[in-house]
Amino acid sequence: MQIYTRVGDKGQTKINGNYTVDKDSARVEAYGTIDELNSFVGRAASSEGTWPTLKEELQQIQQFLFDCGNDLATSNTKKYPYRMSVEPTQWLESIIDGYADEPEPLESFILPGGTPLASDLHVCRTVTRRAERSIVAFNHYLEVSQETEAYETQRKESEANPYVQMFVNRLSDYFFAVARVANHRADTKDVLYERSGKVFH
Amino acid sequence: MQIYTRVGDKGQTKINGNYTVDKDSARVEAYGTIDELNSFVGRAASSEGTWPTLKEELQQIQQFLFDCGNDLATSNTKKYPYRMSVEPTQWLESIIDGYADEPEPLESFILPGGTPLASDLHVCRTVTRRAERSIVAFNHYLEVSQETEAYETQRKESEANPYVQMFVNRLSDYFFAVARVANHRADTKDVLYERSGKVFH
Amino acid sequence: MQIYTRVGDKGQTKINGNYTVDKDSARVEAYGTIDELNSFVGRAASSEGTWPTLKEELQQIQQFLFDCGNDLATSNTKKYPYRMSVEPTQWLESIIDGYADEPEPLESFILPGGTPLASDLHVCRTVTRRAERSIVAFNHYLEVSQETEAYETQRKESEANPYVQMFVNRLSDYFFAVARVANHRADTKDVLYERSGKVFH
Ligand code: B12
Ligand code: B12
Ligand code: B12
Ligand SMILES: C[C@H]1O[C@@H](n2cnc3c(N)ncnc32)[C@H](O)[C@@H]1O
Ligand SMILES: C[C@H]1O[C@@H](n2cnc3c(N)ncnc32)[C@H](O)[C@@H]1O
Ligand SMILES: C[C@H]1O[C@@H](n2cnc3c(N)ncnc32)[C@H](O)[C@@H]1O
Ligand SMILES: [Mg+2]
Ligand SMILES: [Mg+2]
Ligand SMILES: [Mg+2]
Repeated sequence: MQIYTRVGDKGQTKINGNYTVDKDSARVEAYGTIDELNSFVGRAASSEGTWPTLKEELQQIQQFLFDCGNDLATSNTKKYPYRMSVEPTQWLESIIDGYADEPEPLESFILPGGTPLASDLHVCRTVTRRAERSIVAFNHYLEVSQETEAYETQRKESEANPYVQMFVNRLSDYFFAVARVANHRADTKDVLYERSGKVFH
Repeated sequence: MQIYTRVGDKGQTKINGNYTVDKDSARVEAYGTIDELNSFVGRAASSEGTWPTLKEELQQIQQFLFDCGNDLATSNTKKYPYRMSVEPTQWLESIIDGYADEPEPLESFILPGGTPLASDLHVCRTVTRRAERSIVAFNHYLEVSQETEAYETQRKESEANPYVQMFVNRLSDYFFAVARVANHRADTKDVLYERSGKVFH
Repeated sequence: MQIYTRVGDKGQTKINGNYTVDKDSARVEAYGTIDELNSFVGRAASSEGTWPTLKEELQQIQQFLFDCGNDLATSNTKKYPYRMSVEPTQWLESIIDGYADEPEPLESFILPGGTPLASDLHVCRTVTRRAERSIVAFNHYLEVSQETEAYETQRKESEANPYVQMFVNRLSDYFFAVARVANHRADTKDVLYERSGKVFH
C-alpha cells in the first residue's frame, strides 16, 4: 500500500463520491476536527488509570466519531447513506445518567484537571466543543451556499445530518461527567473556580 | 444534577445574562478556546516533574483563565461586571522576571520540547497564542457588528475587556520562560533551531 | 534577555522584515498553527517508547517546521529568501517507503490510538492536517487581497512558498505510517473502524 498519492499537494481534495472540495472548506474543517478529536480520544484511552468499561466506552465513541466523519464527508446520501441516528446520543445519555450520582453534587464550575486521565478527558471535552462549533459553521455555510455550489445542490442539502451535531453536543457532557468520575475514583478532589456563581442546578 | 439539557442541539446557546448566540460566533470561539487552553494547563499541571510553586502558579492561572472566560462571555457589564484587571498581568511579569535569569541567555529560537513537562508547557504556549488570535478576531467582529446585532448594542461595546487580551499575550511569554526553566532544572538542554538568526536581544 | 515587550498587547504584531499585521490574519494563523504543531511533535518525541531513529526524525521534522514557519512569516523574499525546497518532502517519502511494509497491509480505516506514543503521533497527524488547512486558507486570502494590502504587494506574491504546503501534506502521511509502526513494534494491534469500506488500495 502506497499511502501518499501527492494529489492533494495543491490544496484540493475529495469527499465521498469523489466530489472535489477545497481543503479549507467548512466541510473539511468539520470532519478534520472530528478526526483530531478522535485522536485525542485515543490519547485518553491510552492514559494510565482507565477502567475496563471506560476503555470500551471510548472505543465505541471512536467508532461513532468515524460515523460522524463519514456523514460530514457525504454530500450525496442517495449513494452514501448517513450512518448516525438518535441511538448513539441515547446511549451517551444513559452512560451519563449512570455516572451522574457517583461524585458529590456540584454547584460551582471546576478547574479542568486533576489526574492525568481526568485532564486528558477535559482536553477531549473542549476539543469536542471545538468540533461542535465547526459543525455549526458548516451548517451556516450550507445555508448560504446551497444555490451556488454545484456539488452541494446535487442533493439540495441545507443541513448536515442533525444527529451528528446532537451526538457531539452530548459527547462534551459525557466527557465532563466521566472526568469527574475519574478524579473521584482516584480520590482526587476537583478544585472549584473561586469566583464561580451557583451555576449548576 | 442533570448535566445535559439538550437545548443546544440546534447550534445556539446562551451567554451571561441569557442572551442567545450562535455557537460558531466569534465570542463563543474566544471563550471556548480559553476553556480548551485551560484544559491543557490542567494537563501540564498533572505531568511528572512539576515543582510545588509551579503547581500553584498553574492553578492560579486556571482561576484567571476562568475570569477571562467570564469577561468574554459577558456582553452587559452593568449586570455582570468584568473580573480581569491589570494585576494578573503584572503578577505574570514578576514571575517571568524571576525565571528569566535561571537558564543560560538565549540568542536563537529553540525547538519546542525537551522533558514531557517542558513539552506540555510549549503546547500551552502555542494554544495560548491560538486563544489570543481568537480574541483579536472577536474584537474585529465587535467593531463590524456593533450597529447590527441587538444583543451587543445593549451596552454599545466596541471591544472586549482589554485586560483579557493583555493577560493572554503575557501568558504565552510566561509559558516560554517556564518551559525553559523546566528543562534547565531537569538538566535537559534546549535544542537550537539550526538556521535561526540572532532573534532574541 | 527580556522576553516580553508589551508591544503586541493591542492585537498587532510583526513579521519578517518588520511589516505590521493583525494577529488574526490568515498568515499569522498559518505560522502560529505550525508552531502549535511543532509543540505537539516535541510532545511525541518526549513520550515513552520512541526508538533512536524516530527521535532523530522528529527532531529533523521540527527543524523543517521552523523553516516552514519562516517562509510563512516572509512576505519580501528579496530580503528574506525562502528556506523550504522539494528535498524535505522527498526525505519524508523515503522514510514512509521504508516504514510502509513493516506492519500488515491495511484495507480499512483504523481508530487513531494504541500505545501512548502511537496516540501522540495520531494527534500530530491531525494537527498537521489542521495546519495544512490554515495554509490553504492563507493562499486563498493572498489571492483575494493581493491588490489591496500594501505589505503583500511589495513582492506581488500570489501564493505562499508551495514547498511548505507539499511538505505539510506529506507530513500527515508520515505520521500515519509511523503511528502504525509504533503500534506494530509494541505488539499492539490497530483496531479497525467497523463500518469502513475497503478504502486503502
Ligand atoms: C472521508 C475520508 C477520510 C475521513 C474518514 C472519515 C470517515 N469516517 O469517513 C478521514 C478524514 C478521517 C480520513 C483519514 C485518512 N485518510 Co482518507 N479518505 C476519505 C475518502 C474521501 C472517503 C472514504 C470513505 O469512507 N468512503 C465512503 C465509503 C463508504 O466508500 P467506499 O469505501 O468506496 O465504500 C463503498 C463501496 O466501496 C462499497 N463497499 C465498501 N466496502 C465494501 C466491501 C465489499 C465486499 C463490497 C462489495 C462493497 C464495499 O460500499 C461503499 C458504499 O457505496 C477517501 C477518498 C475517496 N473519495 O474515496 C479518502 C482516502 C481513503 N483516504 C486516504 C488516506 C491516505 C487517509 C489518511 C491516511 C490520511 C492521513 N495522512 O491522515 C487517513 C487515515 C485515517 C485512519 N485513521 O485510518 C487515501 C488512501 C490512499 C490509498 N493508499 O489507497 C484516500 C483514497 C484519499 C486519497 N486519494 O489520497 N479519510
Ligand atoms: C459562561 C458559561 C460557561 C463558560 C464559563 C467561563 C467563565 N468563566 O465564565 C464555559 C464555556 C467554560 C462553561 C463550561 C461549562 N458549562 Co457552562 N455556562 C456558562 C453560562 C453561559 C454562564 C455562567 C456564569 O458564569 N454566569 C455568570 C455568573 C456570574 O452568573 P450567576 O452564576 O447567575 O451568578 C449571578 C447570580 O446568580 C449571583 N450569584 C452568584 N452566586 C451567588 C451566590 C449567592 C449566595 C447569591 C445570593 C447570588 C449569587 O451573582 C451573579 C452575578 O449576578 C451558563 C448559562 C447561563 N446563561 O447562566 C452556562 C451553564 C452554567 N453551563 C453549563 C454546563 C453544562 C457547562 C459544562 C459542563 C459544559 C461542558 N460539557 O463542557 C462546562 C463545565 C465547565 C467546568 N469546568 O466546570 C450548564 C449547567 C446545566 C446545569 N446542570 O445546571 C449551563 C446552565 C448552560 C445550560 N443551560 O446548559 N460554561
Ligand atoms: C517569525 C517570528 C517567530 C516565529 C518563528 C517561525 C520561524 N521559523 O520563522 C514563531 C511564531 C515560531 C516565533 C515564536 C517566538 N517568538 Co518570535 N519572532 C519572529 C519574528 C517576526 C521574525 C524572526 C526571524 O526569524 N526573522 C528572520 C531572520 C532571518 O531575521 P534575523 O534574525 O533578523 O536575521 C537576519 C539578520 O539578522 C541576519 N543575521 C541573522 N543572524 C546573523 C548572524 C550574523 C553573525 C550576522 C552578521 C547576520 C545575521 O541575517 C538574517 C537575514 O537577513 C521576530 C520579530 C522580527 N520582526 O524580527 C519575532 C521575535 C524574535 N520573537 C520574539 C518572541 C518573544 C518569541 C516567542 C518567545 C514568543 C512566545 N511567547 O511564544 C517564541 C519563541 C519560539 C521559540 N521556540 O524559540 C521576540 C523576541 C524578543 C526579544 N527578547 O528579543 C521578537 C523580536 C518579537 C517581539 N518584538 O516581541 N517567532
Ligand atoms: C456552558 C456554556 O458553554 C457555552 N457553549 C455551548 N456550546 C459550546 C461550544 N461548542 N463551544 C464553546 N462554548 C460552548 C455556552 O455559553 C453554554 O452556556
Ligand atoms: C514572535 C512572533 O510571533 C508572532 N505572533 C505574535 N502573536 C502571535 C499569536 N497570537 N499567534 C501566532 N503568532 C503570533 C509574531 O510574528 C511575533 O513577532
Ligand atoms: C483522506 C481524506 O482526508 C481529507 N483531507 C485531505 N486533506 C485534509 C486536511 N488537511 N484536513 C482534513 N481532511 C483532509 C480528504 O477528504 C481526503 O480524501
Ligand atoms: Mg453543549
Ligand atoms: Mg506575544
Ligand atoms: Mg493529505
